[in-house]
Amino acid sequence: MNKIAIYPGSFDPITNGHIDLIHRAARLFDEVIVAITQNINKNSFLSIDERMEAVSISVQSLDNVRILSFDSLLVDFARDHNAQIIIRGLRAVSDFEYEFQLSGMNKRLNPNIETLFMTPSEEFANISSSLVREILSLGGDIGPFVPECVETIVQRHKSK
Amino acid sequence: MNKIAIYPGSFDPITNGHIDLIHRAARLFDEVIVAITQNINKNSFLSIDERMEAVSISVQSLDNVRILSFDSLLVDFARDHNAQIIIRGLRAVSDFEYEFQLSGMNKRLNPNIETLFMTPSEEFANISSSLVREILSLGGDIGPFVPECVETIVQRHKSK
Amino acid sequence: MNKIAIYPGSFDPITNGHIDLIHRAARLFDEVIVAITQNINKNSFLSIDERMEAVSISVQSLDNVRILSFDSLLVDFARDHNAQIIIRGLRAVSDFEYEFQLSGMNKRLNPNIETLFMTPSEEFANISSSLVREILSLGGDIGPFVPECVETIVQRHKSK
Amino acid sequence: MNKIAIYPGSFDPITNGHIDLIHRAARLFDEVIVAITQNINKNSFLSIDERMEAVSISVQSLDNVRILSFDSLLVDFARDHNAQIIIRGLRAVSDFEYEFQLSGMNKRLNPNIETLFMTPSEEFANISSSLVREILSLGGDIGPFVPECVETIVQRHKSK
Amino acid sequence: MNKIAIYPGSFDPITNGHIDLIHRAARLFDEVIVAITQNINKNSFLSIDERMEAVSISVQSLDNVRILSFDSLLVDFARDHNAQIIIRGLRAVSDFEYEFQLSGMNKRLNPNIETLFMTPSEEFANISSSLVREILSLGGDIGPFVPECVETIVQRHKSK
Amino acid sequence: MNKIAIYPGSFDPITNGHIDLIHRAARLFDEVIVAITQNINKNSFLSIDERMEAVSISVQSLDNVRILSFDSLLVDFARDHNAQIIIRGLRAVSDFEYEFQLSGMNKRLNPNIETLFMTPSEEFANISSSLVREILSLGGDIGPFVPECVETIVQRHKSK
Repeated sequence: MNKIAIYPGSFDPITNGHIDLIHRAARLFDEVIVAITQNINKNSFLSIDERMEAVSISVQSLDNVRILSFDSLLVDFARDHNAQIIIRGLRAVSDFEYEFQLSGMNKRLNPNIETLFMTPSEEFANISSSLVREILSLGGDIGPFVPECVETIVQRHKSK
Repeated sequence: MNKIAIYPGSFDPITNGHIDLIHRAARLFDEVIVAITQNINKNSFLSIDERMEAVSISVQSLDNVRILSFDSLLVDFARDHNAQIIIRGLRAVSDFEYEFQLSGMNKRLNPNIETLFMTPSEEFANISSSLVREILSLGGDIGPFVPECVETIVQRHKSK
Repeated sequence: MNKIAIYPGSFDPITNGHIDLIHRAARLFDEVIVAITQNINKNSFLSIDERMEAVSISVQSLDNVRILSFDSLLVDFARDHNAQIIIRGLRAVSDFEYEFQLSGMNKRLNPNIETLFMTPSEEFANISSSLVREILSLGGDIGPFVPECVETIVQRHKSK
Repeated sequence: MNKIAIYPGSFDPITNGHIDLIHRAARLFDEVIVAITQNINKNSFLSIDERMEAVSISVQSLDNVRILSFDSLLVDFARDHNAQIIIRGLRAVSDFEYEFQLSGMNKRLNPNIETLFMTPSEEFANISSSLVREILSLGGDIGPFVPECVETIVQRHKSK
Repeated sequence: MNKIAIYPGSFDPITNGHIDLIHRAARLFDEVIVAITQNINKNSFLSIDERMEAVSISVQSLDNVRILSFDSLLVDFARDHNAQIIIRGLRAVSDFEYEFQLSGMNKRLNPNIETLFMTPSEEFANISSSLVREILSLGGDIGPFVPECVETIVQRHKSK
Repeated sequence: MNKIAIYPGSFDPITNGHIDLIHRAARLFDEVIVAITQNINKNSFLSIDERMEAVSISVQSLDNVRILSFDSLLVDFARDHNAQIIIRGLRAVSDFEYEFQLSGMNKRLNPNIETLFMTPSEEFANISSSLVREILSLGGDIGPFVPECVETIVQRHKSK
């Protein structure tokens, strides 16, 4: 049976750390679905279309990666796409605790779906979307942390 | 002297984890006061009346449990009700740190009031009100995590 | 029904932090049993007799505190002494995790016994028996961290 | 390409938590190798033969699980068995940090091998081999935490 | 070369814990710049002018301390003031993780600037600006946690 | 007044992470004393002479760094060498907690000595002496983690 893994997140914006993790996951599973939360309730910095565009460009070299948006319960989304696996990145202890709870609740909602955790490669351990947004809001250079397409999309977003 | 313990929280909504902890505390102390924060500043999902109703129904079998709302400093509320003990649930490390600080400040504000921490029973370790609200907002089933009365009250709340 | 609480530990040696916690617990429960582990397998610094002597002197002003040694399973010891409560001090996150596991296992071994956690008063947050032993081994002054009787007993112990 | 995952550990003794995790991993990967460390330097409670016997009996129903012992570097062992994946269980924050470091070093020693983390099912979150050994040393009942074969092997081990 | 250290923060309001740390830092470095974030995006409780006034009064006895506000990237601000060092207070594990990430990103943005961490003195370990604001919002007494000038400024702020 | 900082540790053996931190500290303070614990009680892997040799070779290019061994209380050693500052590296949350306690006790033993914490550069975040020793004991290659002189000294040590 094909192993399909879902990698969910806001990707607001996608960082070099996300991209590294997607590449690594794509080597481990038959298919990886990058699932972008629409965040209807929460305010996002980039629109869902801008975030999908950035992710698509960033991982276009990978044949077995699909990009989808979703606004339902993650376990339902996983079941609908025949995914057995949810992948989550763990950067820090505080991540870990929230993720632990979340994976516990997901398991109760659907015991057939497993959560697997990956840690970032060393050089990406300190990168996060929220710190990227903070640098942007203070006029700093996000070049070292995101792919080029994000810089372009952010530029375009600001000039609207 | 009677030992009176206060169990404060938002209970927005009450979960099976809260109910388990209240039952266990009711066996240890002469009286347990469930103290529901009114959250005047913060937005709550359910109104204070709805939250009080849900808690009341959930623990009505317990003779030595009272339910009150409050919007003052916790140590003042405790003193006004002759409580010597504040009970807090600890689910995770991040809980622990905030609680540690809070109990330190409370101790300075009133050294006669002690904070005691309890951990959830295993089957409730991954339940939290905020995750319940998230499941609700995504159209998921909260049945495994809350008492039946919460489902009814939430239903009624939504149909308003 | 009388509420009996057990406060277990190695007390090798008892510190000012332990003494503070015993005083606070003695105000909350009808009886507190300080239960000193005999550590037959592990090497202790002070003998079980020396540790019991130090604890006895340190809390002799408290009427509702008893001191016992034990080398059985904690939940069995608690049951044999009609204790419903185990008290544990939480100083740090790493404490918390081990304690969380332990309380989970104890709960499975005997669901009638509850573990309650207390945090140290601020001025004792950084004191631990192991740091006291380290200071001793390096010839430092342990006066700020332990009661006077411990200094006497340690002196006597060394001159043997 | 077949996905082969290694699940390394001391398994001293195997617990119900380990068994649950092996079952779950066996559904996700084509083959799972349970790799038991020989612990030549450290003292183990059970011998390597006893530990291998206990693991073998515990997971004999699983077709795609092999049990091996090893005393080399984990990444070398993985490479020699064509495994691309190391599975580690994460129970607590302190686990997480050590594991994070270890996976970082392993990645430098062999960048082709990925570490994936799984969390225990709720009912096994508080079980660990070291707590099982502690219960045993205090004469307690380990029945709730380990498979029956471990009780038999421990009994036989003690009567030697 | 003169060693100039920056101590950045919201100081909303300054607490006794901040003041203790500034005094200690002023003994270690040739000059300490207290850098108050303007928080243009986030809502602050006190205005930037009120916060600067409170900090100025609180540390006016220290000759080698300057107070400035800033709304740029911290590493840029540091470079513009010839500071080689950023000082951060670490109170808790969750602080630590965020700070760790932040210092990692700052290092990438400017490798010449080092972050040094200090821990609070014991008596200030449980004080934070956010808890002070919470006490204020509930009508409690903040006297034990802040310098007198803060109480005056808060009073004046409220009567506006 | 000259600022003298002490960087204490076992350095068993020194790693690339230690060396990076010593270089960074040497830029911040007038003098850095690398203080190697003799570990008379604990077993060390390398002898104190071997460890001093490795550290000396590793940092010989730095003019303002001295290497000393010590077996007394750290605060006494600091006072005897007119050091006002203790530097500690923080790699992980568990480090943090122990260090926090230690710095609290040191402060009580000598309030004039401050502890400053530094975090490792990203590429050294996952290196520790104990993991290096573990790799060695399993026959792995420690080249990526230590300076060349350590490999030589370890080789010589083993052939004794």
